[in-house]
Amino acid sequence: MMLWMAADPAPNPRRVRLFLKAKGLVLPETSVSLFAREHKSATVLAKNPRGQVPFLELDDGRVIAETISICRYLDDIHPEPPLFGSDAFERAETDMWIRRAETFLGPQVSMAWQHDHPMTARLIKQIPEMGRAARAQAQVALAWFDEQLRGRAFLAGDRFSMADITLLTIFDFGDWIDIKAPTELAALHGWHARVMARLA
Amino acid sequence: MMLWMAADPAPNPRRVRLFLKAKGLVLPETSVSLFAREHKSATVLAKNPRGQVPFLELDDGRVIAETISICRYLDDIHPEPPLFGSDAFERAETDMWIRRAETFLGPQVSMAWQHDHPMTARLIKQIPEMGRAARAQAQVALAWFDEQLRGRAFLAGDRFSMADITLLTIFDFGDWIDIKAPTELAALHGWHARVMARLA
Repeated sequence: MMLWMAADPAPNPRRVRLFLKAKGLVLPETSVSLFAREHKSATVLAKNPRGQVPFLELDDGRVIAETISICRYLDDIHPEPPLFGSDAFERAETDMWIRRAETFLGPQVSMAWQHDHPMTARLIKQIPEMGRAARAQAQVALAWFDEQLRGRAFLAGDRFSMADITLLTIFDFGDWIDIKAPTELAALHGWHARVMARLA
Repeated sequence: MMLWMAADPAPNPRRVRLFLKAKGLVLPETSVSLFAREHKSATVLAKNPRGQVPFLELDDGRVIAETISICRYLDDIHPEPPLFGSDAFERAETDMWIRRAETFLGPQVSMAWQHDHPMTARLIKQIPEMGRAARAQAQVALAWFDEQLRGRAFLAGDRFSMADITLLTIFDFGDWIDIKAPTELAALHGWHARVMARLA
């Protein structure tokens, strides 16, 4: 098995890295340079035609791409501790919270990064109005997550899961591009501290 | 069990509907009107704080929201025929193709709908330049899927799966808002015909 990766702070590689840590798994890795555009090389495209890392190459040559799909596979073949849930409801509940993180906060952070950040300006024809709108919507999403986290330890209640890792990486990448959660969002900040402690 | 739904052509309700048909399942349904904004009512928000349909309410009151999570749950408790895969690799592979449809073509169709369609103009402060950019990127995604589908029956090879239903609903909603796949994308159109025949 070979895990094709890139350095932090790219949120997808970091998500896999935190998952592996929480699972206590170590895999052989090959790192590609995003700045040198190695993820668009013929070598990578032959394995993952989306031209993205991370992806997981199995010993028989089959490839699993997409961050959550990779983690889902590893959780499936190494069930303990379960990070995607232990029964049908928990599996669906974990998936739901992963998706809420990815589809509510995720796109806003992604659009702010693409359309309102100096590091992407050389790669993308930016639409600054879109970047600003995304930053405003990201605050709506952060407030929503704060509300959901009141009175519960983790997104799926008492159960630490891949959903927490997913939201954490999006939250932190957002913070890094200056999408700051106001200090009044105490439940969200408390959750963040709990997840960081869990992953320490 | 109660499935909270909305009428076609909204792509998420349609995705669940096609899944249920492919599984041969019938569930009791409650329909809410998206045009009357019933999905933002107190009744719905108490069950799904994202204010979206579909969501699935279990007999004990627990709720599973997010389209794919609902289908994943139903596939888990009614395994035949499997639409999310039958072993660890197939489950990850299905998830990967669902995500490729959702994260590559999906956001472009969504942004075109939000920022370049008259029906959303009254709800959203549109950024027309974003809508036009999304339409152009949607064509890049369609061409990519065409390339992937050359020489294979379905996204996951010979295996019809939830990934096909996912891409189909995004493709058809795109078509409905005038994101048309050129006829030269023969592999994509062939795949579309096969999936429609499968779901007939």
